[in-house]
Amino acid sequence: MIDNSKTEQYGPSDVGRFVICCADRPGIISTVATFLHHEGANIIDFDQHSSGAPEGKFFLRLEFQLKGLVEREKVFSEAFAEKVAAAHDMQWTLTLAVDKPRTAIFVSKFDHALMELLWRVSRDLLPIEVSLVISNHDDLRQQVEGLGFRFKHIPVNASNKAEAEQETINLLNGEVDLLVLARYMQILSADFVDQFSNRIINIHHSFLPAFAGADPYRQACEQGVKLIGATSHYVTAELDQGPIIEQDVVRVSHRLSIEELKQLGNEVERKVLSKAVLWHAENRVIVDGNKTIVFNK
Amino acid sequence: MIDNSKTEQYGPSDVGRFVICCADRPGIISTVATFLHHEGANIIDFDQHSSGAPEGKFFLRLEFQLKGLVEREKVFSEAFAEKVAAAHDMQWTLTLAVDKPRTAIFVSKFDHALMELLWRVSRDLLPIEVSLVISNHDDLRQQVEGLGFRFKHIPVNASNKAEAEQETINLLNGEVDLLVLARYMQILSADFVDQFSNRIINIHHSFLPAFAGADPYRQACEQGVKLIGATSHYVTAELDQGPIIEQDVVRVSHRLSIEELKQLGNEVERKVLSKAVLWHAENRVIVDGNKTIVFNK
Amino acid sequence: MIDNSKTEQYGPSDVGRFVICCADRPGIISTVATFLHHEGANIIDFDQHSSGAPEGKFFLRLEFQLKGLVEREKVFSEAFAEKVAAAHDMQWTLTLAVDKPRTAIFVSKFDHALMELLWRVSRDLLPIEVSLVISNHDDLRQQVEGLGFRFKHIPVNASNKAEAEQETINLLNGEVDLLVLARYMQILSADFVDQFSNRIINIHHSFLPAFAGADPYRQACEQGVKLIGATSHYVTAELDQGPIIEQDVVRVSHRLSIEELKQLGNEVERKVLSKAVLWHAENRVIVDGNKTIVFNK
Amino acid sequence: MIDNSKTEQYGPSDVGRFVICCADRPGIISTVATFLHHEGANIIDFDQHSSGAPEGKFFLRLEFQLKGLVEREKVFSEAFAEKVAAAHDMQWTLTLAVDKPRTAIFVSKFDHALMELLWRVSRDLLPIEVSLVISNHDDLRQQVEGLGFRFKHIPVNASNKAEAEQETINLLNGEVDLLVLARYMQILSADFVDQFSNRIINIHHSFLPAFAGADPYRQACEQGVKLIGATSHYVTAELDQGPIIEQDVVRVSHRLSIEELKQLGNEVERKVLSKAVLWHAENRVIVDGNKTIVFNK
Repeated sequence: MIDNSKTEQYGPSDVGRFVICCADRPGIISTVATFLHHEGANIIDFDQHSSGAPEGKFFLRLEFQLKGLVEREKVFSEAFAEKVAAAHDMQWTLTLAVDKPRTAIFVSKFDHALMELLWRVSRDLLPIEVSLVISNHDDLRQQVEGLGFRFKHIPVNASNKAEAEQETINLLNGEVDLLVLARYMQILSADFVDQFSNRIINIHHSFLPAFAGADPYRQACEQGVKLIGATSHYVTAELDQGPIIEQDVVRVSHRLSIEELKQLGNEVERKVLSKAVLWHAENRVIVDGNKTIVFNK
Repeated sequence: MIDNSKTEQYGPSDVGRFVICCADRPGIISTVATFLHHEGANIIDFDQHSSGAPEGKFFLRLEFQLKGLVEREKVFSEAFAEKVAAAHDMQWTLTLAVDKPRTAIFVSKFDHALMELLWRVSRDLLPIEVSLVISNHDDLRQQVEGLGFRFKHIPVNASNKAEAEQETINLLNGEVDLLVLARYMQILSADFVDQFSNRIINIHHSFLPAFAGADPYRQACEQGVKLIGATSHYVTAELDQGPIIEQDVVRVSHRLSIEELKQLGNEVERKVLSKAVLWHAENRVIVDGNKTIVFNK
Repeated sequence: MIDNSKTEQYGPSDVGRFVICCADRPGIISTVATFLHHEGANIIDFDQHSSGAPEGKFFLRLEFQLKGLVEREKVFSEAFAEKVAAAHDMQWTLTLAVDKPRTAIFVSKFDHALMELLWRVSRDLLPIEVSLVISNHDDLRQQVEGLGFRFKHIPVNASNKAEAEQETINLLNGEVDLLVLARYMQILSADFVDQFSNRIINIHHSFLPAFAGADPYRQACEQGVKLIGATSHYVTAELDQGPIIEQDVVRVSHRLSIEELKQLGNEVERKVLSKAVLWHAENRVIVDGNKTIVFNK
Repeated sequence: MIDNSKTEQYGPSDVGRFVICCADRPGIISTVATFLHHEGANIIDFDQHSSGAPEGKFFLRLEFQLKGLVEREKVFSEAFAEKVAAAHDMQWTLTLAVDKPRTAIFVSKFDHALMELLWRVSRDLLPIEVSLVISNHDDLRQQVEGLGFRFKHIPVNASNKAEAEQETINLLNGEVDLLVLARYMQILSADFVDQFSNRIINIHHSFLPAFAGADPYRQACEQGVKLIGATSHYVTAELDQGPIIEQDVVRVSHRLSIEELKQLGNEVERKVLSKAVLWHAENRVIVDGNKTIVFNK
């Protein structure tokens, strides 16, 4: 609820976001909204979802304005924990809208998804802070550095996989909030994935029907599919099967070569991955088991 | 918030919907949610939107479960009016989910939009009660009556327009909640429209760029548009300019004849009008001046 | 090439279609076009596709006008066989545009795809002749017969499958050109499928990623897919894997129940199956191994 | 028709394209195909369209392979003119596939459409040769030059418009085949447009219904449209009304701000303009009065 008489007084640093997940039961909205009202916070966006029986989970994302939130965050957060979260056994996060997730982008040789992300970041269209770009090849160094971003080459091969992952972890040094695999052609170990649960976003092709295995575009072409697409998802230990964030398709015909199918697929990948990262960065995605709730616009 | 331990106990007649619109200010969600919680109602769906300054309006649609709502409706409604709505100068409605809007469908000679609506109603896919079908031609009587619906032929010509509208109003007799113009080729008078403000839904073609005047598909074909579409909107005194509920398009090529463009346009009309009527019937559409808030799924 | 000075003189029975497939080599278009020109036929639509090396196949669909085609068909056809087809070892068909494929529609209990087809046939939007509707249940008899179509109930169970297929074949009696499975929930035997190679069209759900097995909509809902779709294909002995004719998708969200996903899936099925049958009926689909060339508009 | 036994022998410089437009009459395909066959050329792609009565025009685009085409072009071209084109009063062009159109891109301050084009050119996804980028502002110089393209700042104001256009023409010096207005916010004079008839491609927003005048996104937001789009067209003297090459839309909701609508509109513009330029560069677009025939894949 925007108090318009006072709208002018709020700045970007006065905006926060709650993401809440708990067992569904009566009174949660009342409790949360009343707490915020008493604290002097104005709700400006409110999205809620209840999954049906038998689990019966309650999901909430809300944005609010609170004067001096940056300074008051610690006290405010403790008050919420004590007065609201504890009683409902909530999983919850409070994020300041000004805090952009520190992001490492992983890439191999295909640059389309990477360049789309960097282009959007450069124009303030994607609220992430790109800490560095990591690649198992050195090919894209010049492009990335030319745009003013940090580039790190970490070669990976059959014999050094564990060391390479350790080097990556050392490099991230606990200071990165989000990992984006923008066509990174290496499989991450289950251990690595565990350390960044629900914080690694991947993009891969998707087809109707889906093709596993090598050279999916050749398979798609040979099968004569009429749609090709892309899926962006959180990475789990089970390859390419994590919770889906976004998907899209494009129509194709028998006139297109395998190479042209790939190019169209790349365009869909750029679009789908950009949306997935945007929604994650704005705290719009909640993971619920193997699926997601996406409170997008 | 679904109390899952008790979910089994609720039936369809225990579900209600509030649609609320008022000036935006702090505390509204808290007030509404707390009222419902104290009355023993469980919120099961909650959609909110705040328009920005300068108007600063607050829009809310929520579904709730309340044991015995049908019997308690009057008392419950009065309590809401007194304790919540008055303080915030709210425009609001409370609807029982079991109450389907009584609907009159108007049609001329093209039957595609009408038949799609009747087909969905027959299969319980569209929660409206079709009170009758009104046409300025008698052509579709057999089709409509064959499906078990009431059909009324009210001829309209240059000299009897006012009488025809009066006959229509007499026929509706204050017992119809919604009017759907499913390709009704007569212009309704401003007086008639006023009596059913935001309760008449129309469907018309739409193009990029839009073509006014006669024979729009010929114009579209001659202009070589690459998309054709349809728009469903509430009828206002200004022809074809009322608040838009839903729009969609389909891709076309130079290979299609005018007749084929019309057929594709008809398919889009069936889809778009069905969605618009569904969303209206579920109280998902709120009119805000000349536009709509649509809390669709 | 339309000779416009004479356009008025041609009627629907003067229009024919060639569909030609052969090894690709120089001179085919020249040979075919020159034959037609010498016979006095005017080409009015011409679609060609060459698959790349190594197979190198040539595909052609063309429509032409020829005065008195119905009477001249036999002689004209023999001339083409002798002068053109033999030299290039062509697979080819010549069809009169006025000859609609005689069609049997198979259905079980879900009626949405069937009704969409019958609705279009009734309005002359789908150039097929519905010889009969066959179902393994008797539920839809009244609906089908009410629209003036023939309905035959052939029960199928674990013990009578072979007899049921034989009864079906007897019923079709070599007088049906096309079989459409409009949500027919029985698996046809390889023998049966062989008798109608590339003449049985099926519709089934499709998802990103695809779900095999029972209850695909539940799987899709639990996986949180963001798109659901439908695929129409020719039936081969390998279940649900035949050459794809058409596919489409619709966007979905976490707000939709399994039942609502199914309804949206049904809408896509109606649309996709209608297109596939239309394109087949107009000889626009050529099967090339496990894929199709679709010369659609 | 690919002669596969010889496919290996052809290189990119052996590929040519004919685009032909003439009055429709019997025998054109036969004449063209026979000429090519006799010259030793193999047709590898063939798209044809006949407009209906009363005009009755014939449109053809074909690709062929001919050994040594680059050297033989002049003689080959003269033979076609004499033996084929003259008899049918054809408008026609012959283009070598290796000849990319020399292109000037015009831009003002918004860089999204420009950068998408340059990005594709850099990756060999768009077969144009960017001769230079011309802008009425100097803002984008560094970006453009950083990518290795030539940038020229030609200021335009109320008093120097004619001089600025003359300077532009001098700069182009008859050596540019295509002009792309990638969000160039100046209106070109009718004289200027005449000099580049059907060779200037523009991109502009498009809405349902279309909004003329200033600040279209504000109008669209206030009208509550559910789709926003973009149209790419050839520039004619009549502003924003030239023959449409490509259009697309994206779905929007009441939750989006005017700024967010603009960003989504920009994404559609990038996609639509890229396709329009690609199709023009591949000689896939034929202008027919105020509309286009687009032989796209």
